[in-house]
Amino acid sequence: MIADLSAADLDSLLARARADYDAFRAKGLKLDMTRGKPAPEQLDLAEGMLALPGNRDHLSEAGEDARNYGGLQGLAETRALFARTLGASPDRIVVGDNSSLALMHDSLVYALLKGVPGSAKPWGREPDVAFLCPTPGYDRHFAICEEYGVRMIPVPLTGDGPDMDKVEELVRDPAVKGMWNVPKYANPSGDVYSDETIRRLARMTTAAPDFRLFWDNAYVLHHLTDDGREILNVLDACAEAGHPDRAFVFASTSKMTLAGAGLAFFASSPANVAWLLASASKRTIGPDKLNQLRHVRFLKDHDGLVAHMAKHKALLAPKFAAVDEALEARLAGTGAARWTKPEGGYFISVDVVEGTASRVVQLAKDAGLLLTGAGATWPKGKDPRDQNLRLAPSFPSLSDVKAASEGIAICILLAAAEAESAKRKDAAA
Amino acid sequence: MIADLSAADLDSLLARARADYDAFRAKGLKLDMTRGKPAPEQLDLAEGMLALPGNRDHLSEAGEDARNYGGLQGLAETRALFARTLGASPDRIVVGDNSSLALMHDSLVYALLKGVPGSAKPWGREPDVAFLCPTPGYDRHFAICEEYGVRMIPVPLTGDGPDMDKVEELVRDPAVKGMWNVPKYANPSGDVYSDETIRRLARMTTAAPDFRLFWDNAYVLHHLTDDGREILNVLDACAEAGHPDRAFVFASTSKMTLAGAGLAFFASSPANVAWLLASASKRTIGPDKLNQLRHVRFLKDHDGLVAHMAKHKALLAPKFAAVDEALEARLAGTGAARWTKPEGGYFISVDVVEGTASRVVQLAKDAGLLLTGAGATWPKGKDPRDQNLRLAPSFPSLSDVKAASEGIAICILLAAAEAESAKRKDAAA
Repeated sequence: MIADLSAADLDSLLARARADYDAFRAKGLKLDMTRGKPAPEQLDLAEGMLALPGNRDHLSEAGEDARNYGGLQGLAETRALFARTLGASPDRIVVGDNSSLALMHDSLVYALLKGVPGSAKPWGREPDVAFLCPTPGYDRHFAICEEYGVRMIPVPLTGDGPDMDKVEELVRDPAVKGMWNVPKYANPSGDVYSDETIRRLARMTTAAPDFRLFWDNAYVLHHLTDDGREILNVLDACAEAGHPDRAFVFASTSKMTLAGAGLAFFASSPANVAWLLASASKRTIGPDKLNQLRHVRFLKDHDGLVAHMAKHKALLAPKFAAVDEALEARLAGTGAARWTKPEGGYFISVDVVEGTASRVVQLAKDAGLLLTGAGATWPKGKDPRDQNLRLAPSFPSLSDVKAASEGIAICILLAAAEAESAKRKDAAA
Repeated sequence: MIADLSAADLDSLLARARADYDAFRAKGLKLDMTRGKPAPEQLDLAEGMLALPGNRDHLSEAGEDARNYGGLQGLAETRALFARTLGASPDRIVVGDNSSLALMHDSLVYALLKGVPGSAKPWGREPDVAFLCPTPGYDRHFAICEEYGVRMIPVPLTGDGPDMDKVEELVRDPAVKGMWNVPKYANPSGDVYSDETIRRLARMTTAAPDFRLFWDNAYVLHHLTDDGREILNVLDACAEAGHPDRAFVFASTSKMTLAGAGLAFFASSPANVAWLLASASKRTIGPDKLNQLRHVRFLKDHDGLVAHMAKHKALLAPKFAAVDEALEARLAGTGAARWTKPEGGYFISVDVVEGTASRVVQLAKDAGLLLTGAGATWPKGKDPRDQNLRLAPSFPSLSDVKAASEGIAICILLAAAEAESAKRKDAAA
């Protein structure tokens, strides 16, 4: 542990860390670990879609012309294909266009302007609207709240999901209308919500009668191990607990098929589905049904989807292992960082020495290595402890991931040694 | 003219009209003239797109991977392809997904929740927000206003666009924040805005500093004659008049390529484009760029687009001629109806005898012929004179259009004769 080093050993560590950093910077690399984007090799897995559905193949099973207007809820066969993944029957699924973020955004916008089933008035007419934000979390969730003035209340994650004692206490405030959740392989912590967490979320008494769980199951099939995790079906849990309308479930094929040309999904209770469709019908005549047909032709069925996801795992798992190895090699036993070993998803979350996350990002940047900005995983981009980093190893090549991870470890160690050194100088002064 | 008929002649007309109607109903037809949907033959024109862009063709000219996330404004080559159509340089264009209605909806939503450039506060915080609605107009425009409580003020159309004296008077009210416009081949009136109309719209003094023309150029290339009409470039006109941010221009390829799988466009001033992108960036990581590439590969350039539109005209013009012939054959000289002879677009607007539009729709329905509901072309679906009908001849086959049009003429004449007969009875009583 750096904190236990003698003054001489700390000086020598600092000198070594600086030398390592200078050597890394001298390589003049250009590396980017900022965003959870699929690599070209992952997109290649779906290359066959680029010529689908193919000429004369434009009719749905029900005989609808997928080229024309209409079909607001989505083709029946598309909803059927994803029903098991979403944990909802096809009639409780709405297929959107290429962005589940857009469905989440629109759901919040409709809630602000119109309210949801059970609302006494539009959320936007309330004096105060707040969302619980398990943290560290997904920056784009937080950005939607910030955009529309929704107050964000951070809640710590435990590894099994949010601290439920805190959550149960906070939802006694009627201003708390919603809560963000990435219940499986959370971005970036890798949390997998336990059955008990989900049951408590479903069961808890909320002061707002129209409270909603925004359940972004973005990584539902995105396993990194052979035995992928299953979580409790939140829609069933809510229904059993007498709160059938509590959860809005979201998912997409952005990280299954094509990141920019996938399908997004909303799954919920009949009342919530009717509500979404009523609002969406004012916005559009219908989604791109040819892209829905393209997905059905390519993936065929649930087994096809699972088989396709195994190919992603084969490409991604070595990159996650490479990050872990590089961090382990340089940081094990130093106390300079703790990091997750996620069983799925797209991120590794690193907690560095308090107060050094920004310094790590700056050191990395100066050495040609782009990391997600420090604080990005916190509401409004402000990490009160300046401690959390989000690593996104999916996009760079494996060799770049290895190089970048070594660089990250070097930056973390240098920042930690600097901080310890500064702390002792302060104490001595 | 029915109004001039002797009592005996009116009785005999009524008897003949009833007999014609009974004969029409006896045919047991199933016809639908409700929506402006392209026919399957029109969609077939773009069938080649169903296998595009094709394997390994996923890079933009700039080398972006169109399969991946990003590219919020749209591919440069897609914006370039539609620049002439939109009357804006590529940097002033945003490409959306498959629905220009969605772009209009979202623009209004962002205005309500955030305001537009020049707004003192979000429109939703104003005590009253109103839109001018040239009438008869597009029901889906009006439905968006109704959904969000925007007051709608009907303005009559003249054939050259809205009554500008009225418009200039109405915009002196600061509550008037916007105005719907379908400036070419308007839905359903066929109005083509004159240069003078557009100049006055660009020039007029509005009490609201953040007033916006919602300029839905839905039929910009949708000519029904050999010499298609050109209208003044509204963005240029607004800039010249010192109101560079006044117009939001919308268009789509829904009625060019594939109705459910086209591209939508927003074109405006740099400030408005930056505003839309800032809001859209909270909603999505980017549009479906593969579909943008698909359009570029298929249409190639502006000339390719124009050539494609000529094929639509060849399919559509005979249907419009068939409606006109059928109405002319039975209604000429009766005074029972006036109807448009549009030079483009998707609709024929029919003004029947005041108070009989609902009756015509009901008679048609009882005979197996679905028409757009009476009143649909008015805000909140309420036509104060119960007079306007919107005919949509694009979707049915030419023979169905002929049959339907004859039926419509029969229903119009019967309703007119009934009304005249009832009027005389009332007068005699």
